[in-house]
Amino acid sequence: MALVKPFIFQIVGYQNSGKTTISAKLIKFLTDQGIKTVSIKHHGHGGKPDVLEQKDSSRHLRSGALAVIVEGGGRTILQTDMQNLNLQDQIQLLNFFQPDVILIEGYKQEKYPKLLLLKNKEDLPLLTSVSNICAVGSWSQESDTEYMYPSFSINDEAIISWTAEFIKGNVHKNDEKS
Amino acid sequence: MALVKPFIFQIVGYQNSGKTTISAKLIKFLTDQGIKTVSIKHHGHGGKPDVLEQKDSSRHLRSGALAVIVEGGGRTILQTDMQNLNLQDQIQLLNFFQPDVILIEGYKQEKYPKLLLLKNKEDLPLLTSVSNICAVGSWSQESDTEYMYPSFSINDEAIISWTAEFIKGNVHKNDEKS
Repeated sequence: MALVKPFIFQIVGYQNSGKTTISAKLIKFLTDQGIKTVSIKHHGHGGKPDVLEQKDSSRHLRSGALAVIVEGGGRTILQTDMQNLNLQDQIQLLNFFQPDVILIEGYKQEKYPKLLLLKNKEDLPLLTSVSNICAVGSWSQESDTEYMYPSFSINDEAIISWTAEFIKGNVHKNDEKS
Repeated sequence: MALVKPFIFQIVGYQNSGKTTISAKLIKFLTDQGIKTVSIKHHGHGGKPDVLEQKDSSRHLRSGALAVIVEGGGRTILQTDMQNLNLQDQIQLLNFFQPDVILIEGYKQEKYPKLLLLKNKEDLPLLTSVSNICAVGSWSQESDTEYMYPSFSINDEAIISWTAEFIKGNVHKNDEKS
């Protein structure tokens, strides 16, 4: 079997900079064009993502299961409390679905190509601290700001179409190497 | 890398026959002895397992993502609404964790070795309709019932120790073939 490598792309920015809205629109744009997309989201609100603790699946975890899957009505949920499951592990886990694209919302310290969202002037240092920026989405109404990257207003649909085309252009680009 | 095959074991019985309690106790017994255990649970109450629909991760799914992972505070949740993710797929997904044991709660039509829980006399037909029974756990107070299998009262801790030892005896038994 040829190794088909998904293209990994990140949407980063501080909290409330619109990452989830942009991610959801990108996922819709890509999947509408037949690009198999999966995503990874950092839980940005601190603490663990909610699960209903009294549920049977949580009883399995509390009893020591490394991971538990619960399935019903076509929905499957895998849950693990393994502390050392890093982003690489999450990517490997998602490779099960043989995606074309893995979209990562958050994890701004990571190395993958990125769309950077800037809400306030206080966010500007991200332009130098974040690696591998491909484009910038800005909340600023002023058009006098010049970035070193293709830049879009957060409200302009071009931010979606440009980024989706950029992602599409990179899908399966590395497959021939395998 | 040698192929290490997990031993797959099922806890089956009708709803409210004690499957989750027995499963949780077995998981605890096994993990306390260093046996890496993961589990699969059929959502027995009809419909989809609960997730909080308004959550950002669900927005990714509704937008078309095949699967989404959300991680925070050491908890990782993978969620997919792929309709055709069957038990074999779930097993393959859990193999990522390189478990010694995969404990399956439910799925009584499946082929793996089983502990069968019998609550009422109406449950007795399961003795013939279910394959690969290794032991029976019974709610009956009467000791006059004779089964073709090792049988235990559901309240007797021997049901846990016997089953756990049976599972342990089968862990990594097939590894030498690989």
